[in-house]
Amino acid sequence: MSALPSYVGGKWQRPAQDGTPVHDAVTGAEVARVSSAGVDMGAALEHGRSRGGPALGELTFHQRAALLKSLASHLREHREELYALSARTGATRGDSKFDVDGGIGALFAYSSKGRRELPAGSVYLDGPVEPLGKGGTFAAQHVLTPLRGVAVQINAFNFPVWGPLEKFAPAFLAGVPSLIKPATPTAYLTHRLVELMVDSGLLPEGSVQLVCGSAGDLLDHLTDQDQVAFTGSATTAQRLRTHQAVAANSVRFNAEADSLNCSVLGPDATAGTPEFDLFVDQLVTEMTVKAGQKCTAIRRALVPAARVDEVVEAAREKLSGIAVGNPTSEQVRMGALASTEQREEVRRSLKALLEAGTLVHGDPEDFEVVDADAERGAFLPPLLLRCDDPDLPQPHEVEAFGPVSTLLPYDDTAHAVELARRGKGSLVGSVVSADPAFNREVVLGAASRHGRMLVLNRDDAGESTGHGSPLPALVHGGPGRAGGGEEMGGVRGVLHHMQRTAVQADPATLTAITGQWVPGAPRSETEQHPFRKHLEDLRVGDTVVAGPRTITDADVAHFAEFTGDTFYAHTDDRAAAANPFFDGRVAHGYLVVSFAAGLFVDPDPGPVLANYGLENLRFLTPTYPGDAITVTMTAKQITPRINAEHGEVRWDVDVTNGDGDSVAKYDVLTLVAKRSGEAA
Amino acid sequence: MSALPSYVGGKWQRPAQDGTPVHDAVTGAEVARVSSAGVDMGAALEHGRSRGGPALGELTFHQRAALLKSLASHLREHREELYALSARTGATRGDSKFDVDGGIGALFAYSSKGRRELPAGSVYLDGPVEPLGKGGTFAAQHVLTPLRGVAVQINAFNFPVWGPLEKFAPAFLAGVPSLIKPATPTAYLTHRLVELMVDSGLLPEGSVQLVCGSAGDLLDHLTDQDQVAFTGSATTAQRLRTHQAVAANSVRFNAEADSLNCSVLGPDATAGTPEFDLFVDQLVTEMTVKAGQKCTAIRRALVPAARVDEVVEAAREKLSGIAVGNPTSEQVRMGALASTEQREEVRRSLKALLEAGTLVHGDPEDFEVVDADAERGAFLPPLLLRCDDPDLPQPHEVEAFGPVSTLLPYDDTAHAVELARRGKGSLVGSVVSADPAFNREVVLGAASRHGRMLVLNRDDAGESTGHGSPLPALVHGGPGRAGGGEEMGGVRGVLHHMQRTAVQADPATLTAITGQWVPGAPRSETEQHPFRKHLEDLRVGDTVVAGPRTITDADVAHFAEFTGDTFYAHTDDRAAAANPFFDGRVAHGYLVVSFAAGLFVDPDPGPVLANYGLENLRFLTPTYPGDAITVTMTAKQITPRINAEHGEVRWDVDVTNGDGDSVAKYDVLTLVAKRSGEAA
Repeated sequence: MSALPSYVGGKWQRPAQDGTPVHDAVTGAEVARVSSAGVDMGAALEHGRSRGGPALGELTFHQRAALLKSLASHLREHREELYALSARTGATRGDSKFDVDGGIGALFAYSSKGRRELPAGSVYLDGPVEPLGKGGTFAAQHVLTPLRGVAVQINAFNFPVWGPLEKFAPAFLAGVPSLIKPATPTAYLTHRLVELMVDSGLLPEGSVQLVCGSAGDLLDHLTDQDQVAFTGSATTAQRLRTHQAVAANSVRFNAEADSLNCSVLGPDATAGTPEFDLFVDQLVTEMTVKAGQKCTAIRRALVPAARVDEVVEAAREKLSGIAVGNPTSEQVRMGALASTEQREEVRRSLKALLEAGTLVHGDPEDFEVVDADAERGAFLPPLLLRCDDPDLPQPHEVEAFGPVSTLLPYDDTAHAVELARRGKGSLVGSVVSADPAFNREVVLGAASRHGRMLVLNRDDAGESTGHGSPLPALVHGGPGRAGGGEEMGGVRGVLHHMQRTAVQADPATLTAITGQWVPGAPRSETEQHPFRKHLEDLRVGDTVVAGPRTITDADVAHFAEFTGDTFYAHTDDRAAAANPFFDGRVAHGYLVVSFAAGLFVDPDPGPVLANYGLENLRFLTPTYPGDAITVTMTAKQITPRINAEHGEVRWDVDVTNGDGDSVAKYDVLTLVAKRSGEAA
Repeated sequence: MSALPSYVGGKWQRPAQDGTPVHDAVTGAEVARVSSAGVDMGAALEHGRSRGGPALGELTFHQRAALLKSLASHLREHREELYALSARTGATRGDSKFDVDGGIGALFAYSSKGRRELPAGSVYLDGPVEPLGKGGTFAAQHVLTPLRGVAVQINAFNFPVWGPLEKFAPAFLAGVPSLIKPATPTAYLTHRLVELMVDSGLLPEGSVQLVCGSAGDLLDHLTDQDQVAFTGSATTAQRLRTHQAVAANSVRFNAEADSLNCSVLGPDATAGTPEFDLFVDQLVTEMTVKAGQKCTAIRRALVPAARVDEVVEAAREKLSGIAVGNPTSEQVRMGALASTEQREEVRRSLKALLEAGTLVHGDPEDFEVVDADAERGAFLPPLLLRCDDPDLPQPHEVEAFGPVSTLLPYDDTAHAVELARRGKGSLVGSVVSADPAFNREVVLGAASRHGRMLVLNRDDAGESTGHGSPLPALVHGGPGRAGGGEEMGGVRGVLHHMQRTAVQADPATLTAITGQWVPGAPRSETEQHPFRKHLEDLRVGDTVVAGPRTITDADVAHFAEFTGDTFYAHTDDRAAAANPFFDGRVAHGYLVVSFAAGLFVDPDPGPVLANYGLENLRFLTPTYPGDAITVTMTAKQITPRINAEHGEVRWDVDVTNGDGDSVAKYDVLTLVAKRSGEAA
């Protein structure tokens, strides 16, 4: 059997050696050989930097988002093929969906986030403009630009599809090329995934590369513009983090390591309550999905001391219904571990755990296996331990990366929080309770040692995505033992691939750099009303000034009567004057913005299709009857949409009074048509 | 002379040894001795964790912000004393102000940011609620809570006041105790600073500690909840970053290292232009302030090849007016380096630079010193080099941490960007040009290797804070050689001390945990209109439902005529129907929100004082004449203000039509009075 090729420098390259054999987790048959011998790691990185980065740099966020969507659709068409290979890793069909559909889902989610939450262009503006001088001639804007290096992604064996894709998607969206290094035991599945990605023809050359096998001297070639995202063991994380080139070049290093995640049963959740059942169901699910080989699985189940016996009973009953064996067999609920080496590793960890607790379900040496050879396949039964002294170290320190959990009793809420925190950094913790005070205390008490916390109860169970499922919109990672990293979290995960820079300049220069009009920059008052310009013709800075219009006593009285807004500050001079903010009756804020619209609007049909919203409205100075208002409206941000006949335009609006003071400032959001027939 | 005491475990502790003598930079006289012998580092950290953290945890962001302001005022009263000590470090009065006033300014700035940009309470909500289920029963909110450890702050010698304070302020605001370790050569100034801080009586016990002298085994005691912020050399940064306990516990490590910052003169800036003069002035300032001992100083001055001679000429003229000597002497413009060791270090680096370039101003062995002994004091003159081959490595790799800069010629814009990037990671770069296209190309081209970039020209020069000045509102730090860290940046710097956690729950539980009403959580419709409740009586979830009110044809026609907003979509049925978003004439959005206000308002004088703004308004469904609108308004976030008679209340407003569809959603911002006479 020849070894899996790597995809580097724009072509598939067979390794120079036969490589390490990798075996089917169920049958023990050889599936593939894996080696990176002969791969020039420095050249691969340089290819990403010199080809992939610039190619991605020519695309906007929205174009990259569109490619991610097409890629997701392409992979979805081939998912049966991925499921089939996935079964050889020991995964049931459900496990495979978790991995494959989860990965494709991450691509779709990032595509959607990219279109909705990232701007036109390829520079991200972070936070508001910071005024730095009272005269308004000096200001700053934080911008993020893509790092001009490669995102090296070192994946774990347990999610050969989701793992690479959840790392690839945000990097791609940021404009940073990926180099994917799968874990050897399941490299054949990631290899096929990347083959599908490359064959799709959707991805710019150099934007994705694959190295099957050892990383070799890859890290030696890293520069300050490269980064490493690692998922795997804490020991390896530590070794990579302190690698000479990583440390010397301040290479961004993100680690996501297995952690001793807990789930806490609330004191309110007595047997018979929905929460009791939800707790036990979730525990069993987390023990058995992917045969417990999830870095987010529940390792420590914290239960009120008085309730441990009942939980043991209920869990044993559920667990005894779990058939273990060939994952392609209909009746099987739990497949094999990824390899027999992994099974040995779990047995070793179990031994350590048994110093502190006892098995209440499952025997690692004696269990039934359906439709497979128990010795050739990497099987284990679900193994539930009970440790009556929760203060012993082992349950909080030893991770058996398989279908293994330990039940631990707690005394009171403070004790539950203390035990939850003893994981010293977890990816996720869950609380199963319908008591808001308990949920609050545990979540806020344990949060600084958790990247994610889930509250499960009768109210959200129907829609809950579960303890073990990281979601693209939420951060994934945790402090301390969990590696101290953070991935995904929606746009946050994109920004991890970019450099934040504070840009200080005069407003006109800031506008030129960011593409967004900055207050103080020149305004362009043209003869043509900017509402008469199509999206392509409009420029940031295009401005209409209208007014003045005097707001009369009668206007205010009439507006109060017409709208029903008879708030005393608009109707009663004496009462208004007693208000700390007013000297007498004031015009309604809604009257001011309505009149402002009356001033700036261009009534006839034209490119401006609708005002779909308003943001950051602040009433800055009271408007008194007799005041004359003038409105200045300036195109601030123009966002064309791919495949749409219109785009969004954000306008800066400044309503001033006769003294030139701003009475209201806000952003008006409009939809503006492209030139007819030119939708692209 | 006895050694400086450390402040650990709640008391001043003299070291167990005499310690290292530290000398006056100007006279060479011994100023102090420094040693940390006998300090129990583990106990100090534990004191911070067990006393400082909990004490800070009892305060809200706003309370901590108020303390920072008081502390800043207290230090300002003692600044003359700090200036006097600062002079002994070689600093001129201007240098001392830069350090001392800059540090006090950082406290004021963080106090202000804390009051204005951080919420009531002590949990920070990051980003919007993320809906996770279509039924609205499951959602997430990212929250940040303080790390329950100590912020270990290892400072550089060059800013003994600003350095500790810019690190302390955001940590304190986050609720994390600080342990300050000054650099030995100027530890006596930081010692006095911390003495003033402690003596102020403002800071909760354990929230600040000081270790003068070596860090000893401090780092060995770090846990996953502690963090390290280091400023100093890249070599030390690398050593600390790879420290066993730091790596093993994924301790957050932030480094800010000296970098080879550049300043680029634009091709438009010929001699005689304001930009030419600004470039030369800034270069001279950056070379001489703090005797060039600024990690943000300009080390590489990039000049169009044709203009190098002119720049040399102009810079020499300016530099020859800089008198070097005793910083307390009136005529002196540049003081001493911090120590004679430092001077030797600069001489060594200069030697390396001279392999690539030549000195065009200054002789390190022969220069005049005013009012001081040239040998006993750590003096050097400003030293300007010229290197005609800008592609040689030395100018981009060797940092002489003193009054030393190198002029380098560039050919065209692309070359300027390439040279700017050759610093491989800088804290700051500046561009001096009035050409927006050039500024854009250089800034965006070099941004991924810079933490801050300044554009200087005739338009912003009057208010520019300068190349070398980090500002509390802007990020300070840079990739690669600059350490890969990020400090300050306003609230960002506070959040670096907190853990982000994605909390998933049902809306009611999310509301209980975050203190902010989440859509889908119960609403409480009480008999009393919520506008009649004082701030203390109002609860998130308090709701008023009002309506329905039918919007008639006549209403729309009248509103158009009254406001002048005769946009065709409101006035012309046929034209409106041709709009892709409408089926016919629609009501004005401003009419909908005005009528909504008429429905929800409670007219009589009461605790609600004013509507000061509106946010996130979206028009979701068109409102047609004949539609009846109902408004539901719910208290979402309540922000009391310390020392004020009112606070802010944010209301969630949902305007629905007869079908129950939302036609508009937005947040209304109001000021609500506290109970009379109870302002605290």
